Amino acid sequence: MNQKPSFDLSLYLVTDRELSLGRPLEFIVEEAIKGGVTMVQLRETSCSTLEFYQLAKKLKALLQARNVPLIINNRADIALAVDADGLHIGQSDLPWQVARRLLGPDKIIGLSVETLRQASDANELDIDYIGISPVFATPTKTDTAPPFGLEGVKAVCAVSRHPSVGIGGISSQNAAQIIAKGASGIAVVSAISAAENPRQAAKLLANIVKNKVYEME
Amino acid sequence: MNQKPSFDLSLYLVTDRELSLGRPLEFIVEEAIKGGVTMVQLRETSCSTLEFYQLAKKLKALLQARNVPLIINNRADIALAVDADGLHIGQSDLPWQVARRLLGPDKIIGLSVETLRQASDANELDIDYIGISPVFATPTKTDTAPPFGLEGVKAVCAVSRHPSVGIGGISSQNAAQIIAKGASGIAVVSAISAAENPRQAAKLLANIVKNKVYEME
Repeated sequence: MNQKPSFDLSLYLVTDRELSLGRPLEFIVEEAIKGGVTMVQLRETSCSTLEFYQLAKKLKALLQARNVPLIINNRADIALAVDADGLHIGQSDLPWQVARRLLGPDKIIGLSVETLRQASDANELDIDYIGISPVFATPTKTDTAPPFGLEGVKAVCAVSRHPSVGIGGISSQNAAQIIAKGASGIAVVSAISAAENPRQAAKLLANIVKNKVYEME
Repeated sequence: MNQKPSFDLSLYLVTDRELSLGRPLEFIVEEAIKGGVTMVQLRETSCSTLEFYQLAKKLKALLQARNVPLIINNRADIALAVDADGLHIGQSDLPWQVARRLLGPDKIIGLSVETLRQASDANELDIDYIGISPVFATPTKTDTAPPFGLEGVKAVCAVSRHPSVGIGGISSQNAAQIIAKGASGIAVVSAISAAENPRQAAKLLANIVKNKVYEME
């Protein structure tokens, strides 16, 4: 029998090939894991279904060998096709009940919340974590809700029964503060993918999250 | 036990909300069915997953009541979510084996072929029909392969063991010729959705396909 894989939200990489400075996705992911990334979400918003599937299949093999969960953004069909560990859905994606029905009880489902009310409502849902989105304004995603800010993160963590991960504008400069407000982890895009040295960038972030220390300049 | 629904490719509507002159999708589909459409494919290329799901759910209810199969374009997750009758995949969508595995043996799977070679290769595949795409150049879809033309349709139908439907630039002016070359049906977008009277447009096309007569001007 399967059962839901254990997962660690502490340093969650969300992929973005456009921000990877021309380096292959597998390179970024592999280096990020060596640096301490604990979870990877494959997010593709404009490629064909075939390409998304092929990327997901490659990452699945790579991550499974390293015991790091693979989460697929939005596309339950891709998650099912590659037997990913889970699915991340936003407020404009499949309703969570549908996602849960398609994936079954043994997969991780994450839900982005954009308001305190959504975070509170999510307590009733059979999901596994929430994404607090966005914590800060970010150039990576422009169609986002107003940012929560650190006080918003604190309020969400106080109200939520789910573990949470902050996303949006997170870097080594502010990562410790997000953890200090109660989040289980940080989700980053450009802080790793666009870093000159993704492994070092991940290592620094992992250390900050683990030790809740501010970066020394 | 379920079993694969019988289906009739003769007049196959592929939706396009942008070409519907501002009229709701349900209106177009309902009128098209009254005019004689035998199959409907929901194709959405730019809306959110949530909106796609909601549209699919509405169409499923509407079509089920009228005993017309609903086929979802590209998105196996949407097809599964609404228990659609089938999925249509193109050459850049999920591989057919994956689609078949996700949907199971009792769903209709259609595959677009863009070359005679793909049509011939499709004989080995567990799919239910092929789309000959495109028959003619069309403004509806600009990312297509070179058109087959009528002789291409004839060649595909001669080689294929699957029933086939032509798509691309099909109107009352050329519908009969496509059937005469051996296709089981025609798939149309703007010929119905952009028609002033979609029901009348469907009626005319259905009559042409059924009687293999050219339109009298």
